[in-house]
Amino acid sequence: MENQVTLVQKTVVITPDGHREEQEIVAIEVPYTVALNDRDIGTSMVLATGLEEFGAGFLFGQGYVTEPGQVREVLVCPEGRISVHADVDEEDEPKEVIITSGCGGTGRISREMLEGAFDPLKECTITLAEIRRFIRQVLHYSPLGGQTHCVHGCGFWADGKLQAHYEDVGRHNAVDKVIGAILMGKITARGAIYTTGRLTSDMVLKCARIGIPIVMSRTAPSSLGLAIARRAGVTLAAYARPDRVNIFHAPERIIRAGD
Amino acid sequence: MENQVTLVQKTVVITPDGHREEQEIVAIEVPYTVALNDRDIGTSMVLATGLEEFGAGFLFGQGYVTEPGQVREVLVCPEGRISVHADVDEEDEPKEVIITSGCGGTGRISREMLEGAFDPLKECTITLAEIRRFIRQVLHYSPLGGQTHCVHGCGFWADGKLQAHYEDVGRHNAVDKVIGAILMGKITARGAIYTTGRLTSDMVLKCARIGIPIVMSRTAPSSLGLAIARRAGVTLAAYARPDRVNIFHAPERIIRAGD
Repeated sequence: MENQVTLVQKTVVITPDGHREEQEIVAIEVPYTVALNDRDIGTSMVLATGLEEFGAGFLFGQGYVTEPGQVREVLVCPEGRISVHADVDEEDEPKEVIITSGCGGTGRISREMLEGAFDPLKECTITLAEIRRFIRQVLHYSPLGGQTHCVHGCGFWADGKLQAHYEDVGRHNAVDKVIGAILMGKITARGAIYTTGRLTSDMVLKCARIGIPIVMSRTAPSSLGLAIARRAGVTLAAYARPDRVNIFHAPERIIRAGD
Repeated sequence: MENQVTLVQKTVVITPDGHREEQEIVAIEVPYTVALNDRDIGTSMVLATGLEEFGAGFLFGQGYVTEPGQVREVLVCPEGRISVHADVDEEDEPKEVIITSGCGGTGRISREMLEGAFDPLKECTITLAEIRRFIRQVLHYSPLGGQTHCVHGCGFWADGKLQAHYEDVGRHNAVDKVIGAILMGKITARGAIYTTGRLTSDMVLKCARIGIPIVMSRTAPSSLGLAIARRAGVTLAAYARPDRVNIFHAPERIIRAGD
């Protein structure tokens, strides 16, 4: 299933020199309702790619699905519904809910997620040469960002190669798609995630909860994103470029070639 | 009350040439719980400035407060609580809830908000010369964006001058602060709003609901943001720079000097 994800829009550009028509490419944002075991959990605005992974990752972000192995089946109905069937305990629902703003979020995290202990991370390292290839490949496979200026890219690197890459109108959703791929057993959490979006609390939190040891962003972390990385022991690398990373916590997992 | 909004963090920069230490400025993201008439509505991560306006605007975004004149008093407790007292009908709570992702949102909008009719906008126009001053002033008063790369700016222009400007870790929150200022009677909705963030559906929706006729962004709209602007009759100007705007809908409200 290949959904249309952009449209062309005629616009009017006004400058001191006059008016002229232009054409812009616009990212298509559509609502999809995610259901868990036939119960609607929420509706989210997404870019309609990687929808199975999104459904699983969304439920993880909201605290309904907690680990790989629980997701049995994901069915996508093009009319706007993602049905996830998973072996979860209905009692495990998140209680006290925090609306994650900091530019967003697929919505809500619980105070327990924010303040609870973390399981040990899946250990690994990455070299600067790998980071170069990783970032270049994610950006290569995420052309919509440059075309629409309304899409974030996210990728996952493990065992010396790019394992997954997704795009979405939301920086959260793009990360949720990668986490969904982990939940569905397509990839392992033992690697590095790279996002073009900012690392606010909720972004780092879901990566730490699923056990990803290296979290990288093209841009900056917030104070609470950094605090969660410290508490979970996650390597937090910001302003990541093909030949430069700026490590805010746990630099030992990033190895300079020749070290 | 002046809250600390940044901290300095020592980081390790790794390049092919070696390691070195640097210092980065990090935006402080803190949770604040918003209560309406002593009932907790939600907790959101914010930059701790303009908190009274944020409280009011947050409740508007969630559909609890619907128009100026309802908000009677806003009290901010530095321990993380914003108490809004407002004359609202408890029955008016949003029913079917959509989690606004598309990089976020202070959380949730209702299907009724998304699909309902809009009240007429407060009519006005803006000249290209005003837009130049508007954008320059917002960016001048929003230094945290450049310092932390983790903060969005938002301003409001009416009657030939900048009426309000706010910053936040979330693009939604920054807009919520401007809308809160409208709800609190500090400014009127008859003007232009400018945000450094993307115009996804929920961003345009709340501006249209409060009656702002001109919505401008430094960056792009999504398809649904554009669709809402069309339905509400809002002027949608993207990629706005001091001497250039790219108008996706209703260009008649933007007047080129000399026209």
